[in-house]
Amino acid sequence: MLPTTIHTRLDDLSSLNPGLHNRDFLLTWEHPESTIRFVLAAAALLEELARARVSARVFDTGLGVSIFRDKSTRTRHAFRAGCNLLGLATEELEESTSQVSHGETARETATMIGFLTEAIGIRDDMFLGEGHRYMQEVAASLEESYREGVLAQRPAVLNLQCDLDHPTQSLADLMHLIQVFGGLEALGGKRLVMSWAYSPTYGKPLSVPQGVIALMTRFGMDVVLARPEGYDLVNEPLDAARHSAEASGGSFRIVGSMAEAFDAADIVYPKSWAPLWAMRERTSLQRAGDAATLGALEGEALANNARFKDWACDEAMMRRTRDGRALYMHCLPADVSGVSCPQGEVSRAVFERARLDTYREARHKPFIVAALILATRFADPARALSDIVERATGQGRETMPRD
Amino acid sequence: MLPTTIHTRLDDLSSLNPGLHNRDFLLTWEHPESTIRFVLAAAALLEELARARVSARVFDTGLGVSIFRDKSTRTRHAFRAGCNLLGLATEELEESTSQVSHGETARETATMIGFLTEAIGIRDDMFLGEGHRYMQEVAASLEESYREGVLAQRPAVLNLQCDLDHPTQSLADLMHLIQVFGGLEALGGKRLVMSWAYSPTYGKPLSVPQGVIALMTRFGMDVVLARPEGYDLVNEPLDAARHSAEASGGSFRIVGSMAEAFDAADIVYPKSWAPLWAMRERTSLQRAGDAATLGALEGEALANNARFKDWACDEAMMRRTRDGRALYMHCLPADVSGVSCPQGEVSRAVFERARLDTYREARHKPFIVAALILATRFADPARALSDIVERATGQGRETMPRD
Amino acid sequence: MLPTTIHTRLDDLSSLNPGLHNRDFLLTWEHPESTIRFVLAAAALLEELARARVSARVFDTGLGVSIFRDKSTRTRHAFRAGCNLLGLATEELEESTSQVSHGETARETATMIGFLTEAIGIRDDMFLGEGHRYMQEVAASLEESYREGVLAQRPAVLNLQCDLDHPTQSLADLMHLIQVFGGLEALGGKRLVMSWAYSPTYGKPLSVPQGVIALMTRFGMDVVLARPEGYDLVNEPLDAARHSAEASGGSFRIVGSMAEAFDAADIVYPKSWAPLWAMRERTSLQRAGDAATLGALEGEALANNARFKDWACDEAMMRRTRDGRALYMHCLPADVSGVSCPQGEVSRAVFERARLDTYREARHKPFIVAALILATRFADPARALSDIVERATGQGRETMPRD
Repeated sequence: MLPTTIHTRLDDLSSLNPGLHNRDFLLTWEHPESTIRFVLAAAALLEELARARVSARVFDTGLGVSIFRDKSTRTRHAFRAGCNLLGLATEELEESTSQVSHGETARETATMIGFLTEAIGIRDDMFLGEGHRYMQEVAASLEESYREGVLAQRPAVLNLQCDLDHPTQSLADLMHLIQVFGGLEALGGKRLVMSWAYSPTYGKPLSVPQGVIALMTRFGMDVVLARPEGYDLVNEPLDAARHSAEASGGSFRIVGSMAEAFDAADIVYPKSWAPLWAMRERTSLQRAGDAATLGALEGEALANNARFKDWACDEAMMRRTRDGRALYMHCLPADVSGVSCPQGEVSRAVFERARLDTYREARHKPFIVAALILATRFADPARALSDIVERATGQGRETMPRD
Repeated sequence: MLPTTIHTRLDDLSSLNPGLHNRDFLLTWEHPESTIRFVLAAAALLEELARARVSARVFDTGLGVSIFRDKSTRTRHAFRAGCNLLGLATEELEESTSQVSHGETARETATMIGFLTEAIGIRDDMFLGEGHRYMQEVAASLEESYREGVLAQRPAVLNLQCDLDHPTQSLADLMHLIQVFGGLEALGGKRLVMSWAYSPTYGKPLSVPQGVIALMTRFGMDVVLARPEGYDLVNEPLDAARHSAEASGGSFRIVGSMAEAFDAADIVYPKSWAPLWAMRERTSLQRAGDAATLGALEGEALANNARFKDWACDEAMMRRTRDGRALYMHCLPADVSGVSCPQGEVSRAVFERARLDTYREARHKPFIVAALILATRFADPARALSDIVERATGQGRETMPRD
Repeated sequence: MLPTTIHTRLDDLSSLNPGLHNRDFLLTWEHPESTIRFVLAAAALLEELARARVSARVFDTGLGVSIFRDKSTRTRHAFRAGCNLLGLATEELEESTSQVSHGETARETATMIGFLTEAIGIRDDMFLGEGHRYMQEVAASLEESYREGVLAQRPAVLNLQCDLDHPTQSLADLMHLIQVFGGLEALGGKRLVMSWAYSPTYGKPLSVPQGVIALMTRFGMDVVLARPEGYDLVNEPLDAARHSAEASGGSFRIVGSMAEAFDAADIVYPKSWAPLWAMRERTSLQRAGDAATLGALEGEALANNARFKDWACDEAMMRRTRDGRALYMHCLPADVSGVSCPQGEVSRAVFERARLDTYREARHKPFIVAALILATRFADPARALSDIVERATGQGRETMPRD
């Protein structure tokens, strides 16, 4: 009933120390390789258990709270599903119906929603310099309240996308690569292209490309970042990527042409994002409350996008890749030419061929969320996982209904 | 402690094959009588267990997702309560805070909210030709993703009201009739009148009358549809009603007078709906994005309604029914004259006398939802039910706290 | 593992009869002292169990429904957390996406959301004469539907703040006093000052000060209400406070000066509320739908507030209290001068020193909610609590994961 790989996985997990107990998970590059490996292995195990219809419930009661300061379908569902998988009920802090104040009092709200809460997932990706800082404020408040005995437990803050990183996305992406290529070790030397692509929309966050280059460089891949002039990324993840490439024996370089980057690529991730200068200006204008200039900025940024309509992942572009069949990746939703927009990131034919693969890429996210909760909330998360397996194979708690 | 009828019910259930495993429930007339009978019997059993404070939890974790494209209080609660009864946590896809796109990408969203999900309940009843089609799109995407191994389980799509049918309503209505008249068999020959009634509101969906005539004709009742000129229903459920009446030995006819229909009726269901021509035009205008003409259409439809203010269920109308005391039914909320509007579907006196009965009618809906989830998600749902009973009578999992 | 005080607490609880089974909890002064003592002791026990990571789950399934007719962060979380602690899933009735009608049909909606529901928490604090009445209507409908067999169980209505009282707040406040001063008995003779304080906002409800004076007078404290002219409270809680002070051997008086009230105070609760005349007029205008005059009223009330800017809890004011170190209390969020507003209820220095204490004050609320649910939904809630403890110490259901 249970896959035979389960026990190998459990052994692997017990040799890794995630080092996340009573901590947060905000940026992948803040954590050592053993942590990343633990999260990936735990998520894979939880996914196998779910396929075998084995309950991974470890909380009898408890809450997961989410705060979304930007729209979300996929990550919102993934957070709820990941919490539910472990037995946590979820609630969302809806700022419009709350007495939430910003700035100084974020600290207070954090503790108020921390009572009986195990995890707080936050998306705050709209403004450079804001999202990560807000998550740090929330985490600091929870830490203080836990230390001072106000909170009986330390809720973990999980980054569901900030201005710097989108770790549940990049880790789910990496799980996908591991499954497609047959293991983390098989990724060494593979060429992954994270490329800007044209989109007729404005203001897409920089955190997906930043998260991808910072994470994928850690496992010996040759990572190429391709973007037109003006579409740079923030320094911190760029530095992390350079550093990781060197440490892992891989490489990281930045090029100014999608076509050049696609040559001999094993994996391509063509995705739009906003110009760095526009994102910076947007933050200043937003802080100043200057709505009129914000509108003008949008027009300017869209006009700039339109100069690079040829940055599109079509059949000709794909033919440049290794054997013409690189793995296409996307965090979804993609701007598909002739489907969701007249002209966008990817042609209909390329996307349709890759579509189910992008769904497979997406399906790992609930398990990444669950693995992060396990790793932050349990002193010995490997033991918690082995208890789940024992319960399923023994005569303990019943498994889920089987199809 | 448990009612003595439980074991008879379990025997009955084990002889019925619902045939719904890994499928959806969109229209009652797509399913054979054995399916309908199974759902009714399973819902009745679940309701008895709930009254005996026996836990029917069969899922340790898992999600029920709802999508409401129209307002809802009763059905929203019923879906959440039905999911909760079996142990599923619920979440609602809120389209305004999501990146939901329509049309082509409904397919993608369906899979994205399908991870770890057991049931997806949808209300989409505003536009003729749209709601049922949307549910089919969602179901097709889930089916593909399950077949291709993207989803580990096949979430069932449950129709919480579309343009064609409102099956959780009509099945709850039928449960009410069974309880009032003492069994499904006792309904043969009973005269049920589904009648249009005046309301000063616009745009009420056609799915309740359509669902009622299509379902009630299957059990030998004499079903009469009464409506003014212009208030016809969609062909598909009309055809289903005609066919079912013939097959079941009942009858189905359409008349142009509420008074005539009420004569010697055993059951009356007076309820407003929009003119068919207005609903059709509304869909065209909405597709064309013509908001101005939509406003004009509303005025026209309301003026048309006002021509039929005498289609009201008052004391005089009720006196026409069998012994003057037909069972009054309504899906709620009713437009009660002098209460919720100056003049409406039913007089205050008639409604007040029937009020608690309409609450009794409504209370079955959570159990219909739960029965549909059991029947779609379990290969052997009768066995699942008998396991629940065994657990309650044995020494297994504790029951719910008793009052 | 379990604190040694647990068994003493269980003994105490078993000697108290809460008398709340199948009832509601709307106003503290409607209930005898034994009820209040039971709720406080049960909440304290539940809080100790949570700190020991012992699951207090007593419901396998079941729902808690909340209705918020005003913004809420703290109480919303507390309701959800309290329900979750006992195993209830929560849902919120969102009136904007529901077919909720007001007045006559509140009755109907109450029953429709009552199916399979154990508790309904309501906040309705905006209009004098409305909130408590609405809760009574909901409760009466549930009572009727339970009596008539429509509902299989009697959902308890819990007041999450109305126009008269805010019992989950005042009971949490009292738990805080008990912990700070070392027991309910230690509170006799302590001087508690509930004082109006300046705030640049309009329309804060009167229910917090009303709830505090009505509850704290029951335990022998010397309660002083301080407010400027025009900032009176509603008669019912004032009468309750007078009556309770007399019965408990404490005292209750009203003074017109914050400074005078603070002299030798042991506990101070400086908090703004709206002028009584403005709240009364607001209700009339709202009933009349007179939005223009409502705007003018706001301006008038704010101008009136501004006459009393010296009603602020600063260092000089605090020095007047007993040994200059009275316990500062607040229901949060406070209007802190120079932080959340230029000038407000409390100075930055005073608040910052008390900040973590106000968090401690707030943390009891989820347990008060859970204790109220236990007391209303169980015929023998002391037994339910002792079952939880037995299960944790025996070999029954596993406890929560430990940090």
